Amino acid sequence: MALHMRFFSDNAAPVHPRVMEAMAAANSLDTAYDGDAWSKRLDARFSELFERDVRALWVPSGTAANCLALAAICPPYGGVVCHRDAHIQNDECGAPEFYTHGAKLMLADGEGAKVTPHTVQTVLDAIAADVHRVQPYAVSITNATEYGRVYLPHEVAAIGELARSRGLKFHMDGARFANAMATAGCSPAEMTWQAGVEALSFGFIKNGGMNAEVLVFFDPDLVGATPQRRKRAGLLFSKGRYLAAQVLAMLDDDLWLANARSANANATMLAAGAGDRLIHSVEANEVFLRATPDEAAALRAKGFDFYDWAAGEIRLVTSWDQQADGVRPLAEAIAAL
Amino acid sequence: MALHMRFFSDNAAPVHPRVMEAMAAANSLDTAYDGDAWSKRLDARFSELFERDVRALWVPSGTAANCLALAAICPPYGGVVCHRDAHIQNDECGAPEFYTHGAKLMLADGEGAKVTPHTVQTVLDAIAADVHRVQPYAVSITNATEYGRVYLPHEVAAIGELARSRGLKFHMDGARFANAMATAGCSPAEMTWQAGVEALSFGFIKNGGMNAEVLVFFDPDLVGATPQRRKRAGLLFSKGRYLAAQVLAMLDDDLWLANARSANANATMLAAGAGDRLIHSVEANEVFLRATPDEAAALRAKGFDFYDWAAGEIRLVTSWDQQADGVRPLAEAIAAL
Amino acid sequence: MALHMRFFSDNAAPVHPRVMEAMAAANSLDTAYDGDAWSKRLDARFSELFERDVRALWVPSGTAANCLALAAICPPYGGVVCHRDAHIQNDECGAPEFYTHGAKLMLADGEGAKVTPHTVQTVLDAIAADVHRVQPYAVSITNATEYGRVYLPHEVAAIGELARSRGLKFHMDGARFANAMATAGCSPAEMTWQAGVEALSFGFIKNGGMNAEVLVFFDPDLVGATPQRRKRAGLLFSKGRYLAAQVLAMLDDDLWLANARSANANATMLAAGAGDRLIHSVEANEVFLRATPDEAAALRAKGFDFYDWAAGEIRLVTSWDQQADGVRPLAEAIAAL
Amino acid sequence: MALHMRFFSDNAAPVHPRVMEAMAAANSLDTAYDGDAWSKRLDARFSELFERDVRALWVPSGTAANCLALAAICPPYGGVVCHRDAHIQNDECGAPEFYTHGAKLMLADGEGAKVTPHTVQTVLDAIAADVHRVQPYAVSITNATEYGRVYLPHEVAAIGELARSRGLKFHMDGARFANAMATAGCSPAEMTWQAGVEALSFGFIKNGGMNAEVLVFFDPDLVGATPQRRKRAGLLFSKGRYLAAQVLAMLDDDLWLANARSANANATMLAAGAGDRLIHSVEANEVFLRATPDEAAALRAKGFDFYDWAAGEIRLVTSWDQQADGVRPLAEAIAAL
Repeated sequence: MALHMRFFSDNAAPVHPRVMEAMAAANSLDTAYDGDAWSKRLDARFSELFERDVRALWVPSGTAANCLALAAICPPYGGVVCHRDAHIQNDECGAPEFYTHGAKLMLADGEGAKVTPHTVQTVLDAIAADVHRVQPYAVSITNATEYGRVYLPHEVAAIGELARSRGLKFHMDGARFANAMATAGCSPAEMTWQAGVEALSFGFIKNGGMNAEVLVFFDPDLVGATPQRRKRAGLLFSKGRYLAAQVLAMLDDDLWLANARSANANATMLAAGAGDRLIHSVEANEVFLRATPDEAAALRAKGFDFYDWAAGEIRLVTSWDQQADGVRPLAEAIAAL
Repeated sequence: MALHMRFFSDNAAPVHPRVMEAMAAANSLDTAYDGDAWSKRLDARFSELFERDVRALWVPSGTAANCLALAAICPPYGGVVCHRDAHIQNDECGAPEFYTHGAKLMLADGEGAKVTPHTVQTVLDAIAADVHRVQPYAVSITNATEYGRVYLPHEVAAIGELARSRGLKFHMDGARFANAMATAGCSPAEMTWQAGVEALSFGFIKNGGMNAEVLVFFDPDLVGATPQRRKRAGLLFSKGRYLAAQVLAMLDDDLWLANARSANANATMLAAGAGDRLIHSVEANEVFLRATPDEAAALRAKGFDFYDWAAGEIRLVTSWDQQADGVRPLAEAIAAL
Repeated sequence: MALHMRFFSDNAAPVHPRVMEAMAAANSLDTAYDGDAWSKRLDARFSELFERDVRALWVPSGTAANCLALAAICPPYGGVVCHRDAHIQNDECGAPEFYTHGAKLMLADGEGAKVTPHTVQTVLDAIAADVHRVQPYAVSITNATEYGRVYLPHEVAAIGELARSRGLKFHMDGARFANAMATAGCSPAEMTWQAGVEALSFGFIKNGGMNAEVLVFFDPDLVGATPQRRKRAGLLFSKGRYLAAQVLAMLDDDLWLANARSANANATMLAAGAGDRLIHSVEANEVFLRATPDEAAALRAKGFDFYDWAAGEIRLVTSWDQQADGVRPLAEAIAAL
Repeated sequence: MALHMRFFSDNAAPVHPRVMEAMAAANSLDTAYDGDAWSKRLDARFSELFERDVRALWVPSGTAANCLALAAICPPYGGVVCHRDAHIQNDECGAPEFYTHGAKLMLADGEGAKVTPHTVQTVLDAIAADVHRVQPYAVSITNATEYGRVYLPHEVAAIGELARSRGLKFHMDGARFANAMATAGCSPAEMTWQAGVEALSFGFIKNGGMNAEVLVFFDPDLVGATPQRRKRAGLLFSKGRYLAAQVLAMLDDDLWLANARSANANATMLAAGAGDRLIHSVEANEVFLRATPDEAAALRAKGFDFYDWAAGEIRLVTSWDQQADGVRPLAEAIAAL
């Protein structure tokens, strides 16, 4: 299938040529695990990006990043507040429970998979503070969300302030962090630690990487036993340089932002003529539309591939590698429905 | 450091050019996770190699392969008999306990990190069959072993027969399966399922791959919930085709065997002049030598890099990418000590 | 505080004299763990009660009974559908997640903490059947429920039939099974295995016991590794006869039913004059009432002790040891509010 | 079987009459869980006994006490050094691994199941301090040991000093702490925290209790999440007063010491005529003897009951409830062998 016809997901898009080149360039001997020259650059490179000293560890999947983060901030007998449609709740086959040894996800509401201080507080207030009830230890949000919505820095900060005031740690699942940043237009610092975020799953795979994400701890001490947990989970690859190289290539010349901007722009184009069909405001690279089965079939008959969401709903995801010219026919087809 | 001077480990060697090419060739759009064309070929390709229907799943590290296998064959309240110097016991930061939810490793003796039916039985016979004692559920051996020794098929079969007779499952950690096979000269079938092995961690990373191993279940039913566990551990990569492509390239034209034969031959060359220094018979790509600190320093002064094992012992590991000419100087230096 | 003034909970009531006597009568030497004469009678005694061959294990708490049951019927990567107000979800500090090694509770709705086939099915239907989503393995209901409601046999059977049709195991948390049975008036068999229940946490502690419940598996094979799990959780007491003796005494002459009938009758008396204050229909030994803070204070000023439920709601629980005459003053005080 | 003929184990002995009386005296209404008057006295009563402020929690089994202690002092990715014949290694069906979520027991040698600073250090020194190897976090010893040997305070202190110097926590499994104390003749403080012990499983069940042990944390902060873990394991009984009452009765008038002295004296009597048959010096209430199968059969023919240890070895355990006159016939029979 032609790339520009596929809107099924961004998770299977090709790897960006500059990432492939960086991996090829790393193809010589170096120290194993994360002792190589590439891996050793991560802390400094991400500290520069985030304008403070951070710890940055490569991990090979978003699920791994999320769950190592959760294990670092929530004990086995604790709970993590997240949206009921969060990826950690619905799409990781219980990985949070596995990595945390049984912590409980506490589900909050919110439009577009965005929790708010109010919905988080509603969850918290229902929890009696005694030994019989799992107590909350952390809040986790996804930015951009599972419905392609973006938390702006002040929205993140409001949740961060609530978390801080309740003694909770604060994690951001940034599988599509680049898409959120492309929209928000703020600095990475403003979107994260300045808004109270303590751990970030910084995604690259959906955005042009192959199999490397970065788990960032804004307080270096918070990394704790994460290196041991990463090893213990079979995630400490012996040839770590090929992961670090991917990530470094993505940061060079802000490739990560350029890719995300492109995907976001194409999603916006798709939404432009969708009118009332739009279920969620399009703020990143995902478009959720109301479409009857017949309408969906009509689009598919033209060669477009996408995901059936709920009944009468379809999801279109744009990827870094699509050109505007390639996406335009679908935009026109949607407008013409 | 020049490749041919480095005998520290095979775990950081470069990736074979044909593997890199295969990954580049996979760099187009396909279905996510393991739904792509490359991943879907694994079952058939490994079934062909092993001359029976098998299930073959890519996993991104040897630790992951081993521990998914152990989780499939041993419950949380069970035990796995292995050598006390096994990788799963000493080098995986408790990954077996993590993946199995707390199973116990039961440590057997044996020269060169090879257990024998006798040493396994000694462990088994000491276990009272009651509810107070963790009961054994599996045996795991490493081939080639952590000391570069090789189990020949009849040795594997003897352990397999014991396992079968005691109702235990049988796993082989084949992080260096290729090196063992290069030495044994038998068929993959003879070394594994025909000898009673039910799950194999088939290693490629030390032998020219980047970050893909294959977990093979010889009884397809034994795969059980392994796909769920793989997902739950953050190991189900969204772009799985880059892992499958590595492995398929390694199998093409028996590259895996060619690489291993080369490394083994170079290890044999190193051992040739070592005489009484040899601690273990050299049967794969590892050479353990007695060497005083002065002798070790002398070798290092000539530029050779290697690992200090125990006091007065050094470990030299050859890699797929070294040429005989490059290795010869070290062989001569050892002989001259 | 006088017993008849306390309606805080049934979980701290005294132990019935006949239970104390039975424990004293067991105070001689016997075999340790569950090898003693009392423990050995459990299977037969409960098989008689349930009119089929069952396995019956003593456990020292309701949480232990529930969670050993869940561990027997749901793997670490699975889910258990239960009501969102279930004890296992809210009052066991994550014990289900601990015992199952991270299974997920999947929360269903329903009036009075009673799930229905419809609400269970709603949960099930939202679960995509793929490797990314935790899959359901079991349903667990509480009878009588956390709000003192009772599932009648045909209601249990309807859920049991749904469970069966979806391949799910079926557990009943019977911490107040006696209260449910006293109301339902059916046979234990009709309420459980004839309605599809496969594992029952049969509670005695709230009903006159000290620290013994019984976990009943209606299919003896389903007991699986429960004895190992019980040991492994520190629950296999060396002097098990004192637990078995409690339970056997409770079954003698249907003491369990007599105690429950008494408590239920007193709850009914409390509800008689409550009129519109009643939040849930009173079917067991719990009464939930609307009461303003002033009204609650007025009751407390008369010496009655009870639990503040949600804002403007109070919970009154009757116990086996209260006499009707002792309870009448509270009934009158409620009616007079 | 007459009590005085049974030397199988102390774990099934009757409950002391004063303990039964204390439980009966507690049989009135009180607050649930550990909010009752009896439970609330534990901290103060044990603080008095140990001459410092401690936290003392009832738990219903020795396994539970040990494993809650280990979970408090060792993370899932850590290790606990203990003797290879320790109860936690061999007799708890993997409970340490369950409660700690997969920590590893690291097995040290030592005569009579007593580790020494040297044997512990041998284990520690073999552990490379890197991310691949499980790192030690704690040491656990059993006093009296599984072979009836006693660590004197200076021996405990030597291990405690090693633990402290290596940054390891220090736990004592005192399932037979009373027997050790009866022999050592020191103060409880000298045997424990003054010798570096940070957590003690204080056993009462083998010594006249029914189903209550006490977990003592000498640093109150070390209790950490133990209350949550106790709840989460199904161990927070709703009628906790019956456990606390047992323990308090055992401490009254030093009943715990009187019982242990009696059992120890009887064991010494058994050993008196055993001569070369003695395998371990008798320092508590256990006697291990060499005896041929014929000799063992001869003793059994006289009505004595005991445990066959290894081949050619038998174990005799005396209990608190045996009188010297009752034990003398076995002593004479042994001497006459």
